[in-house]
Amino acid sequence: MNPPDILISEVGPRDGLQSVKGTMPTADKLRWIDALYAAGVREIEVASFVPARLLPQMADAADVVRHAVTLPGLTVMALVPNRKGAEAALAAGAHKLTMPVSASVAHSLANVRKTREEMVEEVRAVSDLRREIAPHVKLEAGISTAFGCTLQGDVPEDDVIQLAAQCIAAGADESGLSDTVGYANPAQVRRLFRRLRAEIGDKAGAAHMHNTRGLGLANCLAAYEEGVRTFDASLGGLGGCPYAPGASGNVVTEDLVFMFEAMGVRTGIDIQKLIAARSPLIAGLPGEPVYGMTPEAGLPKGFMQGTVHV
Amino acid sequence: MNPPDILISEVGPRDGLQSVKGTMPTADKLRWIDALYAAGVREIEVASFVPARLLPQMADAADVVRHAVTLPGLTVMALVPNRKGAEAALAAGAHKLTMPVSASVAHSLANVRKTREEMVEEVRAVSDLRREIAPHVKLEAGISTAFGCTLQGDVPEDDVIQLAAQCIAAGADESGLSDTVGYANPAQVRRLFRRLRAEIGDKAGAAHMHNTRGLGLANCLAAYEEGVRTFDASLGGLGGCPYAPGASGNVVTEDLVFMFEAMGVRTGIDIQKLIAARSPLIAGLPGEPVYGMTPEAGLPKGFMQGTVHV
Repeated sequence: MNPPDILISEVGPRDGLQSVKGTMPTADKLRWIDALYAAGVREIEVASFVPARLLPQMADAADVVRHAVTLPGLTVMALVPNRKGAEAALAAGAHKLTMPVSASVAHSLANVRKTREEMVEEVRAVSDLRREIAPHVKLEAGISTAFGCTLQGDVPEDDVIQLAAQCIAAGADESGLSDTVGYANPAQVRRLFRRLRAEIGDKAGAAHMHNTRGLGLANCLAAYEEGVRTFDASLGGLGGCPYAPGASGNVVTEDLVFMFEAMGVRTGIDIQKLIAARSPLIAGLPGEPVYGMTPEAGLPKGFMQGTVHV
Repeated sequence: MNPPDILISEVGPRDGLQSVKGTMPTADKLRWIDALYAAGVREIEVASFVPARLLPQMADAADVVRHAVTLPGLTVMALVPNRKGAEAALAAGAHKLTMPVSASVAHSLANVRKTREEMVEEVRAVSDLRREIAPHVKLEAGISTAFGCTLQGDVPEDDVIQLAAQCIAAGADESGLSDTVGYANPAQVRRLFRRLRAEIGDKAGAAHMHNTRGLGLANCLAAYEEGVRTFDASLGGLGGCPYAPGASGNVVTEDLVFMFEAMGVRTGIDIQKLIAARSPLIAGLPGEPVYGMTPEAGLPKGFMQGTVHV
């Protein structure tokens, strides 16, 4: 079988769980990750290495990583805000670290209490550490609020591209763009990813789109047409109701996979098994709403993955 | 002020109302149409001229048309299934007639109890009538189930294109493509509209997309990039819950307008006033759910229409 055309990077167990009030028991997290893996998902952001007092949902981060790395062929990603988090993530065996670096001055201060420049230095510190003790581990810098900010409003494109370049210069292997607050539109997505590629070449990373205003899939389509081949998404759109203020409104993995597979773009993911992976999520977070139009509507009559539908 | 770049054709008062259980009182319909017009909407499908015993929601079709034609610059569209309906619509003063012609053999028989060939003859009869008594009135043939059918599954592309060409040959001024059941994907949308344009040139008409599986806006984007400049949409996504079996899941006008305006593609519609036009809809159909991510999330901070957002 040929390798997939694109990589769907599932962020639910980190980004999703971090945004909800409830805490999913560790055993449920592991069942959920196993189900995602069984569906063919090959990159999962499984945890965030932050102080447990700040984020009790992630207190079991090391245990989750230690389990996930037993799944062959899975890239186990962990969010780390700084060198201390990176040390813990590397000790647990994570394959890839991701660091959020905000292009909005206001958001950076509000979110991590650091300026953008200070965050670039954190990227450098984490990169140095990883080169020293785990040189095979990859490091991604995700430029958040790349398409606008609820605090600051517009975020200049120059700031976004310059920051991504600084992260690469500081040692990151790749830098992607995140529509943290759901402001992006397809024309802007094309423009920014084109500029990103012109600036950092094949170190241009994932598109992390939100569906807050309904444009999530349209923005992913625009990114795909601009050459992006890695897409973040969250099973069931976990990350809170897209309507609620402050909610993340992550792109729904099931709908994103359906769109690409229907287009004949292979994701390597079995949609039916992906939909089945909602069960451990729902069981582990009772009462938490999950989203997704494709799971509700069902697949089209006669729909077969791996064929181009006319 | 320059003319808009695209035409948003609001179908809620016909397509939307036809799909819900309740019947909106005539006075509310008129208030709703007035509010859409005030927001800048310049084409509205206001009614369906079918026997009132089949569709009591449309019993006031002639009254609604007679009011709508008093709004200067508004193109008042009416759905007609046959010559008899066309006579009534023309008598009321409709500016444009639209006829649904299904590319799916099974759907055509189930929906209108006619074969595709019989429906092409209906188009011819309506075109002849309109040329005789109201030659300024436009006639659109909308090819339904153009992207697949819940009864038949795949619908051959050749059938779709051939049928559109037959409708044009029978006298229709334009022919658009409808994703009646929400099966379309962006690659297919591009392919089919490209073929449609190759076949019938500038008689290629509107994209009527549904959001049943979440791909509505992505499909509209694909159609736009293929040169389509008229888009059907329904305020509040009226046409029933997109999750429910049999529901239409129309693309939400508010989200579609937001997408295009954010991209710098001018619709001529004021988003705030468009959102205000939800009030008479909600008042006229108490208890009916309305959808839309942009109305719930609000516009981005600092968002101004008519500017390109970076």
